Amino acid sequence: MRSVEFTGDSIRMLDQSALPQKVEWFECRSAQELAQAIRTMRIRGPQAIGVAAAYAVAMSENPQQTAELLVKTRPEAIGISNATGFVLDMMRNGMVGIQAAARWAGRNDDECKAIAGHGASLFSDKTTILTHCNAGGIATGSTGTALGAIVEAQKQGKEIFVYAGESRPGFGGALTAWELGNARINHKVICDSAAGYLMRRGTVEMVMVGAEAIAGNGDVANGIGTYPLSVLAREHELPFYVLASMSAFGRSVETGDGIRVVARDEVEVLEVAGKRMYPEGTKALNPAFDITPAKNISAWITERGVFRSMDELWNTARK
Amino acid sequence: MRSVEFTGDSIRMLDQSALPQKVEWFECRSAQELAQAIRTMRIRGPQAIGVAAAYAVAMSENPQQTAELLVKTRPEAIGISNATGFVLDMMRNGMVGIQAAARWAGRNDDECKAIAGHGASLFSDKTTILTHCNAGGIATGSTGTALGAIVEAQKQGKEIFVYAGESRPGFGGALTAWELGNARINHKVICDSAAGYLMRRGTVEMVMVGAEAIAGNGDVANGIGTYPLSVLAREHELPFYVLASMSAFGRSVETGDGIRVVARDEVEVLEVAGKRMYPEGTKALNPAFDITPAKNISAWITERGVFRSMDELWNTARK
Repeated sequence: MRSVEFTGDSIRMLDQSALPQKVEWFECRSAQELAQAIRTMRIRGPQAIGVAAAYAVAMSENPQQTAELLVKTRPEAIGISNATGFVLDMMRNGMVGIQAAARWAGRNDDECKAIAGHGASLFSDKTTILTHCNAGGIATGSTGTALGAIVEAQKQGKEIFVYAGESRPGFGGALTAWELGNARINHKVICDSAAGYLMRRGTVEMVMVGAEAIAGNGDVANGIGTYPLSVLAREHELPFYVLASMSAFGRSVETGDGIRVVARDEVEVLEVAGKRMYPEGTKALNPAFDITPAKNISAWITERGVFRSMDELWNTARK
Repeated sequence: MRSVEFTGDSIRMLDQSALPQKVEWFECRSAQELAQAIRTMRIRGPQAIGVAAAYAVAMSENPQQTAELLVKTRPEAIGISNATGFVLDMMRNGMVGIQAAARWAGRNDDECKAIAGHGASLFSDKTTILTHCNAGGIATGSTGTALGAIVEAQKQGKEIFVYAGESRPGFGGALTAWELGNARINHKVICDSAAGYLMRRGTVEMVMVGAEAIAGNGDVANGIGTYPLSVLAREHELPFYVLASMSAFGRSVETGDGIRVVARDEVEVLEVAGKRMYPEGTKALNPAFDITPAKNISAWITERGVFRSMDELWNTARK
């Protein structure tokens, strides 16, 4: 399944806000429409947004302006500016915009496949794994990062069981459950706060997550709740893996402190499924992401391989 | 507000399943009715259930059988068997049942007041605190434990800000928000997984929770998500306080491993506000509690004082 496609005159996307209840598609024909779809979470995941943004820049009469508008919708997601930057560069070098965007989408596919392959090597023959948010086909516009590795490991004949954190407030775990069900991978969902219980019982053997953005020192911004899992994994001596394309890395952003964590609308916390869960007047804080420090990460898995340190990763990247 | 009261021929309770949307009361006239109310979470919190159970035993034609039935509804909640055991003992010694139950309720009030006083001493003049689940008047049938201390600290003129974890799946945080609003204490709710973000930013200065049950070595069973908070608090060198009456302690239960963690119905995870959040066929794991090891707890606050170690606590208890 490819959750983002170019139709010839529009970008066609899987509507993530309708999932998992309904499988619906929608189309955007302008940067404004795409920006609105990002804000309303009809499209989520920096890699998926990156591919869509690449096409939006290519289709635009003002590519530079479109790129700026889209990057602003999710300033922390380094992958989006990398995607739009790639298309702008290629266009400046004389390539047709759509061709550049298609090349970005193709690269994204190749990267996901490579990440899945490297990630799958980290599974033993029988592994129970915990994941958080959605790092699958939906979020990547391709075959996924953390979920891609899980699917690949099962394809290799390994016996996999996945615990998927529901990932409040956005319920990214429901998207993960949907993808796991489609791939016929055994799984259960848990409330995010039950992860500690599972680790303390020894049920979970490793944690794999994707990334919104990664700083030069390896600090990772990812959906809220990722950081506590990394602390728990260290407490229980479990490997904690981050899977992401090299395009998620921002070398100019030195540490996680340089990644701006946006607060989303408090209504996402206060209302669930259209019903208000709290008394009139109650306020909520709704940080979209948190920062997992490099010290809590066992390895970064990219299309270039499995890296146990940032030095190793940047040395390889230079080659 | 007293969330559990004896009317003369029934036990009248605040319906926690209707809160915070509606303030409704309901009555039980038999152990069977009360057991059903416990199962459907119309009444939650071991202290509140303990008071209700004390009256149910007193009203019953088969006190011993009633006590057994009610203890079975929440086998991990040591306070319930302590409450029913107290009434049975007093009745064996010739006290009228209702008088014994009223004495238990009165003791419960005195304990809550003393806990609140001891707990309030742990606040500085200006404190931002995190709490989890509901440890207030609702859960205790009196003035609360962790929430009681917060209310008392504010009464003493201290400036308090509370972050309340929503406490999925049961949204105990909504009850806490309701009580905090009633007490005019400044607060915001967060998704449970946002606690790490707040601690890493230095926003939160301490954590206070109640307890479902406490083992002889100080391990604490409390609503799912308590254990991860204790690990995060230690990581960030923040004090982690457990506030509970001595009746929550089970000396015969040596460690937390001896406290049975019940799994509740998966539907509590899969459905929110009557809406299914997951694809058809998705399964969930729904552990009701987790165990926080004594090593993660800075102090246990009971009606007898603030105890930094279990030795200290048991020595005082013997006096």
